[in-house]
Amino acid sequence: MSDNGEKPAPIEKVSIIISKGSLDGIYPGLIMANGARAEGIEANLFFTFFGLDAIHQKRVDHIKVATVGNPGMHMATLVGALPGMSGIATHMLEKKMEEFDIPPIHEFIEFIGDTGAGMYACKASVDLFGMSEDDFVEQVDSVITVGEFYEIAAGGQIIFT
Amino acid sequence: MSDNGEKPAPIEKVSIIISKGSLDGIYPGLIMANGARAEGIEANLFFTFFGLDAIHQKRVDHIKVATVGNPGMHMATLVGALPGMSGIATHMLEKKMEEFDIPPIHEFIEFIGDTGAGMYACKASVDLFGMSEDDFVEQVDSVITVGEFYEIAAGGQIIFT
Amino acid sequence: MSDNGEKPAPIEKVSIIISKGSLDGIYPGLIMANGARAEGIEANLFFTFFGLDAIHQKRVDHIKVATVGNPGMHMATLVGALPGMSGIATHMLEKKMEEFDIPPIHEFIEFIGDTGAGMYACKASVDLFGMSEDDFVEQVDSVITVGEFYEIAAGGQIIFT
Repeated sequence: MSDNGEKPAPIEKVSIIISKGSLDGIYPGLIMANGARAEGIEANLFFTFFGLDAIHQKRVDHIKVATVGNPGMHMATLVGALPGMSGIATHMLEKKMEEFDIPPIHEFIEFIGDTGAGMYACKASVDLFGMSEDDFVEQVDSVITVGEFYEIAAGGQIIFT
Repeated sequence: MSDNGEKPAPIEKVSIIISKGSLDGIYPGLIMANGARAEGIEANLFFTFFGLDAIHQKRVDHIKVATVGNPGMHMATLVGALPGMSGIATHMLEKKMEEFDIPPIHEFIEFIGDTGAGMYACKASVDLFGMSEDDFVEQVDSVITVGEFYEIAAGGQIIFT
Repeated sequence: MSDNGEKPAPIEKVSIIISKGSLDGIYPGLIMANGARAEGIEANLFFTFFGLDAIHQKRVDHIKVATVGNPGMHMATLVGALPGMSGIATHMLEKKMEEFDIPPIHEFIEFIGDTGAGMYACKASVDLFGMSEDDFVEQVDSVITVGEFYEIAAGGQIIFT
């Protein structure tokens, strides 16, 4: 793949930011973190803005697909806006995921945490939404500032999802 | 630009992930890949989740702008939700793009492929949506895992769009 | 955090791309740029596509939260589509931000510019939307191509938001 024929040093660390609160906004980051750990790559997850829902004990089991504003869902936009459609799309996607052994978000977070991945919540967002460390699933290591995030991310790749 | 006055080594490789299925979600990644190739930078495109539409033979020519949920479109949200509005916004943006020599997605993918950029589909998403390698445009090199993606991305920048 | 126990070199530069035109699409990039400058990390902001609204003199003060297509907002999707709801959600979030000393976008851009961060508009998008350099707030250094962006970003992390 490299132009000079030399093999570049492998990626040693990824720091993945999860900023969206929809099923289709959260899974890509989890899948990339899980894929990294499977290759022995250090992985840190940083939850910010609506992405905090993925680690919020009371919200993590109620996350839905974003049907409206998502032409990729192949549904007429207005139908996507009808109450219940997001639930149906979510149910369909969840069934598909089960079939391919992709766990629900809650379990997936536990699984990724067990592989040794770091999990952090963004302090500014936690304050903004009036949350506290007690609201989060136990896999979350701590609430950190953006500056602390950059320290943790040093020497690796930052992936904002 | 650098604080110590020394010029840093130029970027040699970018690995761009396209995860969204809307016109405004796909173009930024393509423009960044094309801009990289124009500067002699190695570029790899990795299509995942709804971004797979961009390389799907039957879907690539029917991609629309995400009007609802996109305040940047400057249309009242409810109007954005009316059937047909996404089509009108898409038509307007496509006409503008034509004017500035930005090709339709299908052609753009061909063009970028011809510049030697690598193109890959994400295995987990391909399975999830029940697609197969035959569904994709011929510029796609192969269907790869997240682990293989990290290998290809080594030594460069990962850009998730 | 590092597997070999050695401390990796700190991050010296971040180049943050802002591509979305909603309040929740713009703030994460600004907060990450601001957090970088606070740690003495070089920061460059690159505004593209609908993200150009954040530096557009006539638009920056009218940016709204994306309520529809954003399940993270915890509102029924259809309610999110009613005219005015985006305005109410925006008002609520803005009040919260004021409480935590997070400035409005316009002021935040001025503040970040004053810390010495570079600010650039994407040429392709500027052309596409028929804008010109005169439309932008004074903190914007210049309109640049994707190739020039890669030059500026060399030696640092690229973060696409």
